[in-house]
Amino acid sequence: MKSHREELWFETRTRREYINITDRVQGAVSDSGVAEGLCLVNAMHITASVYINDDESGLIQDYDDWLEQLAPHEPVSRYRHNRTGEDNGDAHHKRQIMGREVTVAITDGRLDLGTWEQIFYAEFDGRRRKRVLVKIIGE
Amino acid sequence: MKSHREELWFETRTRREYINITDRVQGAVSDSGVAEGLCLVNAMHITASVYINDDESGLIQDYDDWLEQLAPHEPVSRYRHNRTGEDNGDAHHKRQIMGREVTVAITDGRLDLGTWEQIFYAEFDGRRRKRVLVKIIGE
Amino acid sequence: MKSHREELWFETRTRREYINITDRVQGAVSDSGVAEGLCLVNAMHITASVYINDDESGLIQDYDDWLEQLAPHEPVSRYRHNRTGEDNGDAHHKRQIMGREVTVAITDGRLDLGTWEQIFYAEFDGRRRKRVLVKIIGE
Repeated sequence: MKSHREELWFETRTRREYINITDRVQGAVSDSGVAEGLCLVNAMHITASVYINDDESGLIQDYDDWLEQLAPHEPVSRYRHNRTGEDNGDAHHKRQIMGREVTVAITDGRLDLGTWEQIFYAEFDGRRRKRVLVKIIGE
Repeated sequence: MKSHREELWFETRTRREYINITDRVQGAVSDSGVAEGLCLVNAMHITASVYINDDESGLIQDYDDWLEQLAPHEPVSRYRHNRTGEDNGDAHHKRQIMGREVTVAITDGRLDLGTWEQIFYAEFDGRRRKRVLVKIIGE
Repeated sequence: MKSHREELWFETRTRREYINITDRVQGAVSDSGVAEGLCLVNAMHITASVYINDDESGLIQDYDDWLEQLAPHEPVSRYRHNRTGEDNGDAHHKRQIMGREVTVAITDGRLDLGTWEQIFYAEFDGRRRKRVLVKIIGE
């Protein structure tokens, strides 16, 4: 059994941002030398998500509006968590909707994705250095 | 390490449908010859989910109502995504609530599920051929 | 390839409760002897979640309020599922928001978690014995 570990680092300019990381994850798969296996991709921070959906700008804006409706950033006093001095209570909620991680099959050395499946890093509390873990096991 | 890959295909008659696929996934596990390992089951489309919950018709109708409340199908103009000519903006949102995938343990050659755990394919934009990936690794 | 299986049991005193299980999962990883691999942690019940986020009491209360807003416990007649004699329709919904499972990388024999990542068991229909499955594969 082979295993491979890589970190992907991000520092967004805005609080919220949605970044297509499919090519970077495929790069990790290629580096791993694994032909058949599983690839785990997870946010290492608790105010960010890794999810799979379409790379379509209208949809991404729809998601952003919807998440803001389900868990608004303001008023920051809405969240007990913000009494700790944070202002990211909303980000902890948005991340639960979109999820922490995806597990993707590796087949013939490639991410085994459907036609429109793209892997995204969703940042909900950005403007600082944060990272994603890629862990690959297989043969 | 062994690995096994199978696709399950679906074409629902209605836009939304919830299909119990536990037996089909167990069939893939049996075909794989894997006794101890992990089984990834994921939608290969971005308007469908694979999730685990109860096979109880009232609950499934409750889920459907709730998802329609959280991300209504109409008016289709509600979603920027639909300006691309699609009418499935809601389906991309419903899928995020219910999730893309499940990973299930394999123990003694069987899906290692709790008493009431059943694996479902949830279709949110059906009436065309779509598929689920089952990827198994283990020994 | 090595594999390891453990069950963690819970019986909460209240209907809803959020329990940090990180140390218990690390214990299973240590027992497994796996240095590089994947660790699946999933609720075996369909009214409970395993999720990863911050161990901060204000945030946990925020989550509880938010889940109760998205899927209220009462009136129990709100859910068709409760016509079966249950009163846990809400719990099946809350669990879908927070998720069934997490998969965590194992590196150098340790759970490969970010600084603030903690693994939680979230109970939405407690006061009876329920369990979580930990399944580890790797080398």
